[in-house]
Amino acid sequence: MRFDLPSDRIPTAWYNAIPRLPEPMQPPLHPATNEPVGPDDLAPLFPMALIGQEVSAEPWIDIPGEVIDVLRLWRPTPLVRATRLEEELGTPARIYFKDESVSPAGSHKPNTAVAQAFYNKSEGIERLTTETGAGQWGASLAFAAAQYGIELKVYMVRTSYDSKPYRRILMETWGAECVPSPIADPSSPGSLGMAISDAVADAVGRSDSHYALGSVLNHVLLHQTVIGLEAKEQLEKAGETLPDVVLASCGGGSNLAGIAFPFMEDQSVRLVAVEPTSCPTLTQGSFDYDFGDTAGLTPMLPMYTLGHDFMPPSIHAGGLRYHGDSPIVSALVKAGRMEAVAAPQSKVFEAAALFARTEGKLPAPETAHAIRAAIDEALEAKEKGEERVILFNYSGHGFLDLSAYDAFNRGDLIDE
Amino acid sequence: MRFDLPSDRIPTAWYNAIPRLPEPMQPPLHPATNEPVGPDDLAPLFPMALIGQEVSAEPWIDIPGEVIDVLRLWRPTPLVRATRLEEELGTPARIYFKDESVSPAGSHKPNTAVAQAFYNKSEGIERLTTETGAGQWGASLAFAAAQYGIELKVYMVRTSYDSKPYRRILMETWGAECVPSPIADPSSPGSLGMAISDAVADAVGRSDSHYALGSVLNHVLLHQTVIGLEAKEQLEKAGETLPDVVLASCGGGSNLAGIAFPFMEDQSVRLVAVEPTSCPTLTQGSFDYDFGDTAGLTPMLPMYTLGHDFMPPSIHAGGLRYHGDSPIVSALVKAGRMEAVAAPQSKVFEAAALFARTEGKLPAPETAHAIRAAIDEALEAKEKGEERVILFNYSGHGFLDLSAYDAFNRGDLIDE
Repeated sequence: MRFDLPSDRIPTAWYNAIPRLPEPMQPPLHPATNEPVGPDDLAPLFPMALIGQEVSAEPWIDIPGEVIDVLRLWRPTPLVRATRLEEELGTPARIYFKDESVSPAGSHKPNTAVAQAFYNKSEGIERLTTETGAGQWGASLAFAAAQYGIELKVYMVRTSYDSKPYRRILMETWGAECVPSPIADPSSPGSLGMAISDAVADAVGRSDSHYALGSVLNHVLLHQTVIGLEAKEQLEKAGETLPDVVLASCGGGSNLAGIAFPFMEDQSVRLVAVEPTSCPTLTQGSFDYDFGDTAGLTPMLPMYTLGHDFMPPSIHAGGLRYHGDSPIVSALVKAGRMEAVAAPQSKVFEAAALFARTEGKLPAPETAHAIRAAIDEALEAKEKGEERVILFNYSGHGFLDLSAYDAFNRGDLIDE
Repeated sequence: MRFDLPSDRIPTAWYNAIPRLPEPMQPPLHPATNEPVGPDDLAPLFPMALIGQEVSAEPWIDIPGEVIDVLRLWRPTPLVRATRLEEELGTPARIYFKDESVSPAGSHKPNTAVAQAFYNKSEGIERLTTETGAGQWGASLAFAAAQYGIELKVYMVRTSYDSKPYRRILMETWGAECVPSPIADPSSPGSLGMAISDAVADAVGRSDSHYALGSVLNHVLLHQTVIGLEAKEQLEKAGETLPDVVLASCGGGSNLAGIAFPFMEDQSVRLVAVEPTSCPTLTQGSFDYDFGDTAGLTPMLPMYTLGHDFMPPSIHAGGLRYHGDSPIVSALVKAGRMEAVAAPQSKVFEAAALFARTEGKLPAPETAHAIRAAIDEALEAKEKGEERVILFNYSGHGFLDLSAYDAFNRGDLIDE
C-alpha cells in the first residue's frame, strides 16, 4: 500500500538540524593550527552558499526553485506500507518505508548532488571533481552535473574501476569522465582516501573547478532532509500521527539524517542508526577529533571514529565502510538522542532476501541494514504484543549489487 | 512532472481487444491436422481460466482481488510528462511516458506473471516451468511465483546463462531454480526455441506442473492492458483529452498491447509499433500462419512473420529479437488500425542517451526503441509547428543492460 504526494508537495525548505541540537556543535579544526576552520579555508573547494549552509543557524533553508525543478523528476518519492512483510512476520507492528530507490541513480544521493551542482553553477563554476568508491556517489553527481551543463571528473578507486564497471558506464552515459585512482600509480588498487586526494588536488589546481562530497558534511545532510519531511506528511496521510521508531543505515550518515532529522524534535520518536558489525563506528568507536579521510588531508572533525587508519573488511555494503561519521549524527548519539545498533552481514542478507520475496523489491546491501533492524523491531513488537509504527529509509536498490546476492544464495557469504 | 493515481485506482477489469477487432481473429491451427486448436490441446500446459481468456468474447474481464493485492506493490505506475526532453528538443509537442520500470523486476512483465501464477495456483498447480532469454521474463515469473508459493524452474538460453548472470541471480533470490538450456547438450549455446522445448517437455511430463509464456498469446496481452487503462485516466488528470499518438516497442507485442489497446476504439489516436530494423517483423515480414517457436512445437499462429527459422543479429534489445508477433497486434496492423516503424540500433541508443541526460532515467534497450520513435514524432511536430500529444510506454529500466551503453559510449555499436 503506497502513500503518494502530488508533485506540488515537494518540500520548499530544508530542515536544518544544527540550531536544534541538544548541545552546540564543536567546530572542525585546521590540522596545522588546531584553530577552527573558516570560510576562507574552504573557498577553494566549495561555493560560498554551501560553506554558509555548513554553519547556518537558520532553522529552515529555502530550496531554490531550480533545484526543485530537477528533484521533480523523481520526487516526492513513495511511502510504502510493507503489509506483505508484516504478514510474513506475523507482527502487530506497522512497517513503512520511504522509497529513495526511484531516483535516476537508484539511491538518495541525487538529493544533494543536484543542490551541490546548482550552487556551484550559480557561482560560476564550470567543472567539478569528486571521488567515488563503488560508484554510487559518482553516478549521482554525474546525473546532477548533466542537468546544469557542468563538466565532471570522477576519480574512482581503481579496484572498483576494474572490477565493477557498471556504475562507471552510468557516469559516462551521463557525460562524466571517470578515471581510476590513484592516477600516479597504476599498480596500486587505490582507496577512498587516495581518490579524495586526487580529486581535491585537481580542484585546487584549477580556478574553474570545485570539489564535491557525498556525505558527512553538514550541508550534505541538510539536503537529504526532504526525505523525512515528505515521510512525515505521508505518514499522516496513512493515518499515523508519528512513528515510534525511525531507522536507517549509517555509513557517513546522510540517508539516516535525511529520514531522521525532521523527527528529532518529536521526543517520543526513537531514532536509530544501523551499521555493520564489521565497521562499528557508533557502537564501538570513540568520540574524538579525527580526519575525515585516510590520508589526513581534511579538517579534523568532532565525531565517532574507529581511527582514520582503520581498514574495514570488504563487506558488500561498500557505502558503510567508513571509519568516521557525520559530526551532527555523532553529536546526536553522544547526547543520547539517537541510538545505534550493529548487524552482521549474513543476518543483513537474510533480511534482504525476505524483503525481496515478500515486498518484491531488491535492496542495496547498505539499505538491507535498515531492513534487518526494522524486522528486528517488528519481531520484538510481536513478542511484546505491542503495536509499533516503524519507519525506515529504503535508501537504494540492489540491481548493481547482484553478485553479493549470488554469494548469499550460494552460502558463500562470510561475516568478518 | 508526474501524474500519480492513488492505490485504489488500479483497474479492476482488463480490456479485452478480441471482441473489438475490426475483423474476427483467425484461430491458431494444430500443425498436424490443420484444424483449430481446442481447449483440450492446451490443457496440459495452461489452466482453464487462461485458456478461456485466450478466446473470450467478453469486452471486460474482472481482475481477481488476489491479483490486485500483488499488483498494488508497484501499481498504479507513474505517468510522467518529459518536460526536460521537450525543452531539449524545442518541440511544441507534449511528451508523456508511462513508467513500467518501477515494478519489482524492472519492466512490464510482472503484470502478466502475477496473473498467470495466480490462476495456476487457483487450479491446484504447484509448479511452473518457463523459458527465458536474457532473463527479463524468467525474473518476473520468479517474483510472481514467490508471491503464491509456487515452485518455478526456468530454462535459460545457455549463452545468456553463462554471460549474463545478473537476472539468473535475481531469479534465484526470488526462490526459482534456473538451469541452462538445452539441458541435453551442454556444448550448445542454446536458443529460445530450444529453451521452449525444454520447458514444455518438463511441464507435460509432470501432472503437478504447467508452462507459462511471457508474450504473444492473447491472455498475456490482456493482462498488460492495466498499463493503458491507467494512462488514460492519468492523461485526463494532466489536462489532456486523448493522445494524438501512442507508441511502444514491439517484440512479441505485450508492452505495446498494454499501452495501446485501451485506445483502439478512439479512432483519432494513432497506434504505432516500433521494432528494430534488424528484426523487422511488422515492417518487412508477411502475414501468414507460422510456428510461434523456432523448433516448430507450437500451434500455427496467424501473424506477421519473418519465418520461424529467421535468425536475427544479436542486437542488445534481446526482447525484440522475435521472428513473429502477437496475432492480435498482427491483426490490427493488417487491418490498418496500427502503424509500424523500424529503427536501427545506433539511432535507438542516441535517443536513449539523450533521454538519460535530460530525464535522468536509463532505459532498457527495448524501451529505447519507443523513445526513438517518440523523439522523431516530437521533431516532426516541431517542423510542422504542431502541438502533438505523444504517449509512449517506458517498458523497463536499463540497469542490467549497462554493457550495451558501454559499447555505445565507446562508439563500438554497429548496425546490422
